[in-house]
Amino acid sequence: MELLTANNVWMMICTGLVFFMHLGFTFLESGMTQKKNTVNILFKNFFVITMGLLVYAAGGFNLMYPGDFGIIDGWLGFAGAGLDPGVDYDQLTYADGGYTYWTDFLFQGMFAATAATIVSGAVAERIKLGAFMLYAFLLLVFVYPIVGSWQWGGGKFSTFTEDVGFYDFAGSTLVHSVGGWAALVAIIFLGARVGRFGSDGKPNAIPGHNLPLSAAGVLILWLGWFGFNGGSVLSADPALTSYVLVTTSIAAATGGIVAFVVAASAYKNYDVTMFMNGILGGLVGITAGADLMSIWDSILVGGIGGAVVVGAIAFMDKQKLDDPVGAIAVHLFAGIWGTLAVGVFGDLAGFDQFMVQLACVGIAGVFCVVSCTIIGFITSAIFGGMRVTKEDEIAGLDGVEHGMAAYAD
Amino acid sequence: MELLTANNVWMMICTGLVFFMHLGFTFLESGMTQKKNTVNILFKNFFVITMGLLVYAAGGFNLMYPGDFGIIDGWLGFAGAGLDPGVDYDQLTYADGGYTYWTDFLFQGMFAATAATIVSGAVAERIKLGAFMLYAFLLLVFVYPIVGSWQWGGGKFSTFTEDVGFYDFAGSTLVHSVGGWAALVAIIFLGARVGRFGSDGKPNAIPGHNLPLSAAGVLILWLGWFGFNGGSVLSADPALTSYVLVTTSIAAATGGIVAFVVAASAYKNYDVTMFMNGILGGLVGITAGADLMSIWDSILVGGIGGAVVVGAIAFMDKQKLDDPVGAIAVHLFAGIWGTLAVGVFGDLAGFDQFMVQLACVGIAGVFCVVSCTIIGFITSAIFGGMRVTKEDEIAGLDGVEHGMAAYAD
Amino acid sequence: MELLTANNVWMMICTGLVFFMHLGFTFLESGMTQKKNTVNILFKNFFVITMGLLVYAAGGFNLMYPGDFGIIDGWLGFAGAGLDPGVDYDQLTYADGGYTYWTDFLFQGMFAATAATIVSGAVAERIKLGAFMLYAFLLLVFVYPIVGSWQWGGGKFSTFTEDVGFYDFAGSTLVHSVGGWAALVAIIFLGARVGRFGSDGKPNAIPGHNLPLSAAGVLILWLGWFGFNGGSVLSADPALTSYVLVTTSIAAATGGIVAFVVAASAYKNYDVTMFMNGILGGLVGITAGADLMSIWDSILVGGIGGAVVVGAIAFMDKQKLDDPVGAIAVHLFAGIWGTLAVGVFGDLAGFDQFMVQLACVGIAGVFCVVSCTIIGFITSAIFGGMRVTKEDEIAGLDGVEHGMAAYAD
Repeated sequence: MELLTANNVWMMICTGLVFFMHLGFTFLESGMTQKKNTVNILFKNFFVITMGLLVYAAGGFNLMYPGDFGIIDGWLGFAGAGLDPGVDYDQLTYADGGYTYWTDFLFQGMFAATAATIVSGAVAERIKLGAFMLYAFLLLVFVYPIVGSWQWGGGKFSTFTEDVGFYDFAGSTLVHSVGGWAALVAIIFLGARVGRFGSDGKPNAIPGHNLPLSAAGVLILWLGWFGFNGGSVLSADPALTSYVLVTTSIAAATGGIVAFVVAASAYKNYDVTMFMNGILGGLVGITAGADLMSIWDSILVGGIGGAVVVGAIAFMDKQKLDDPVGAIAVHLFAGIWGTLAVGVFGDLAGFDQFMVQLACVGIAGVFCVVSCTIIGFITSAIFGGMRVTKEDEIAGLDGVEHGMAAYAD
Repeated sequence: MELLTANNVWMMICTGLVFFMHLGFTFLESGMTQKKNTVNILFKNFFVITMGLLVYAAGGFNLMYPGDFGIIDGWLGFAGAGLDPGVDYDQLTYADGGYTYWTDFLFQGMFAATAATIVSGAVAERIKLGAFMLYAFLLLVFVYPIVGSWQWGGGKFSTFTEDVGFYDFAGSTLVHSVGGWAALVAIIFLGARVGRFGSDGKPNAIPGHNLPLSAAGVLILWLGWFGFNGGSVLSADPALTSYVLVTTSIAAATGGIVAFVVAASAYKNYDVTMFMNGILGGLVGITAGADLMSIWDSILVGGIGGAVVVGAIAFMDKQKLDDPVGAIAVHLFAGIWGTLAVGVFGDLAGFDQFMVQLACVGIAGVFCVVSCTIIGFITSAIFGGMRVTKEDEIAGLDGVEHGMAAYAD
Repeated sequence: MELLTANNVWMMICTGLVFFMHLGFTFLESGMTQKKNTVNILFKNFFVITMGLLVYAAGGFNLMYPGDFGIIDGWLGFAGAGLDPGVDYDQLTYADGGYTYWTDFLFQGMFAATAATIVSGAVAERIKLGAFMLYAFLLLVFVYPIVGSWQWGGGKFSTFTEDVGFYDFAGSTLVHSVGGWAALVAIIFLGARVGRFGSDGKPNAIPGHNLPLSAAGVLILWLGWFGFNGGSVLSADPALTSYVLVTTSIAAATGGIVAFVVAASAYKNYDVTMFMNGILGGLVGITAGADLMSIWDSILVGGIGGAVVVGAIAFMDKQKLDDPVGAIAVHLFAGIWGTLAVGVFGDLAGFDQFMVQLACVGIAGVFCVVSCTIIGFITSAIFGGMRVTKEDEIAGLDGVEHGMAAYAD
């Protein structure tokens, strides 16, 4: 009982920290976009966390953790609508005394909402509010919990071959790249913001309106990752939780420093947004194997994560893909890197593991792209396109959709 | 000993989270008011938390928890000035091993300061700084701890009839509506801001100057409520604490969504401030019975809480009552709703319980209105009115009271 | 095992809270300086936390806690590069079951980065970015861990005389005044900002550009101090941790109120920045003896700490020493006060203790000033002076060093 109490306290704290990441995302996204779309961004972020929790309670949790209620064995199951610990529920045995049913739901629910928030950043400044709400809703109803069930729900990924299962400690793939794929599909539907790429194809930076808020967002996200990764131990095991906090922080630090150095070498100035996205790239990168990596591994995984983000931002620019906050570079590219890194560094490194990681990254990617494309077509059909008019975009979404401004005198 | 340690860790965390709510209130209030009064708002918030803790240490704690030191049985008692766990103090038996004397004091002290902060928001932009300081001081010295003693101090509310006691889990009435009544009385003394209502009586919105800060405030308050409600379990009991976090979050989410939908239906735009106040309405609403409600009950209590706030804001406008941040709609109206809801939904629902809830809401309300009116007259007498001159109000309080501006280049 | 788990949970939370202080410092410093240097400030803060953790992992931790690996007995030792709990590592006995090796490292690493952040604030708006990075790097490589080793690493301070050891509970001297001395030396190298002192020697205030962020920083720092002081108990001992949170909060509250009252008496207005720095002065002051002081002692130590800060700010102005955020007044002056206060108030008060406190404050001060002066000369030599050109300073560092602005439309 004492141990359950201590474990559960830790898991509740981690739940709170992952909730707090929503302020991190809100700050990051608000600060990196234009003043005239700020109310819109705040609204989307409130929608994601509120709708996300309710949808996850209504069905997402039981779709992601179907238990014995399989529909297509290992690929789809559903334990029924609503929340119910069941008549046999015993908190002492639930999750081996690591936490209670209710902690489990809330911790996982905060994760679910995170995936949708990633989309919010990438589609900012040009999506119709209604279209975003529907897209995010369908993502959380179907895509996120189904992919999650393949691994964390005990599905096919978790025992991918006879000998080797997929490994994704806290969700480089299951959370971050799912959100990243959904974001990528959405921005292809939307196209780039007006003026983002010149007629010669050259990118024009559209500077963020409030970098202190973005910086605060990054520090809050780092803190939130203590819960995201630290809570993914699923108990308060002293050695493992504290070790995971160390690898997480080392990777974040290295990712940031590598990103600013790489960017300074390439672009000849000290770009604080690269520093920030590098920290996030290190965090996303370490997430798949935070419990497997040595300190040196963490430095490499985080550092390469930071470099991946800098490269991915340049790559996105070349492809004329417009992601105002760098969400796809951070969550999709560094998410893929971190997942593959489990096969390259750390306790499970090996050719077979690498191939399983690669295969599951691929399967998850194909499923996300296909299902999000379908969701994109549905959303477009219902709303007559996902994008606001050029006039509305230039005027700013705050006036058009909300009839108010974020800043006044 | 191990269990005390784990319980006490949880209670200290909750104490920290309730402290953190003061940043939430500071952000919320700063962002929803005008630039020219921002320093004043920051100052008031620092005053409330610092003075609040010291006053509570000096006497508030022992007035709220008089123990055997009754003066008027069940209505007033005082265990003496200052803090002293006593010679018989044994941390293993104090609060049944749920936490220590010191944790108890600090957790309750953070609550006390919260009640005064509610006033700060409602009276913003026109109150004399000295008048506010005196009003808040007298509120915390007399009103808050005395009302609190009636229930949490083991007074008359806690055993209201022979069979049925008042129920207010974490303070929908004892904290939120006490602050709300005090705010209501204060704004009646003050009157509406210049220009807030036209000569035809129609309300003119005075837009807030920094909505990202307000949005951050709401998310911080939601997180803080994990401590406010989660800590009101008064131990780290795994099932109860985690369940309370779930009902709290579900009510917050539902309150927000209902409020924005109701407001969008009524006013034809997506008002992010309604979304925000709806979340807060859901949180205040669930606070009285967060441990009693089923998931469905939480959805109803929180959702109605959100709707109550939208309605109350319109009602206040009709009455020409000017509350810049919606504090009275959120804390008083949703606080009353949440307290009554204990008689309608959840484990204690029933006619007798409802009548007890109603009676105690009424008694607390009458006491607050009468005592705050007396405090208002005293304050007005000392300061020659509570309100700054029209010229000073138009110029802004930052220059007049503080000789400085919140923003420079 | 259960107790280790609960202890370790508390220590991990405290680690997170001390990490969160970096957002507090970032907000405080950004808000109190000019708009045109904001990106620069954000960059410096990201550099300090990322570099700080990596340097501390690479060697700082083992320089500060050398164990048996002495070089100069009691004054210098080094347990080797990198992190390694060793083959005999047993988490149940490490730190008497208070926490694990990894928690220990991360908690101490967050402290180390804090010391460098203090410098960042004082040197803002005129230091070359490269020079700051080198200065902070050398500070964290050599100065901070060596001074720390004298007390927390079991060196000479800890057994200063046969009967009396130096006492510095959570680092009024070892963290705050070390950072403060380093900041003082750096601003003497740099000189005051252009226009800070008139040709008649009179100080001109250069107002901060965003006081709500600064206010948020102060509240976040206060919360962070729950971890800074609460974690310095080095276990979750219920009585001691909760008592320390109470003395810490009481001192913060008193420091703030005394500072604003003193400043209002002297300058005839309600200066919110004095309120804020007074809170910080109370916090720094109580840090050396948070576990030793009675409630009354805490009120005196915190209150005097607040007054010391107001006086020190005036003193710095008189000396034409320019510290944009008041970091030296808070961390050095209140740090010295708090350390000496251990000999005046609380459980250890006495003449011998006072003299030991004074001697160690002096030795630490001399060492910091000498070593930071050497670091300053090295840095100046490498970068051709630590200060940017007058033109660059007037233009602002954001454009010059970073090619970007913190705020756009």
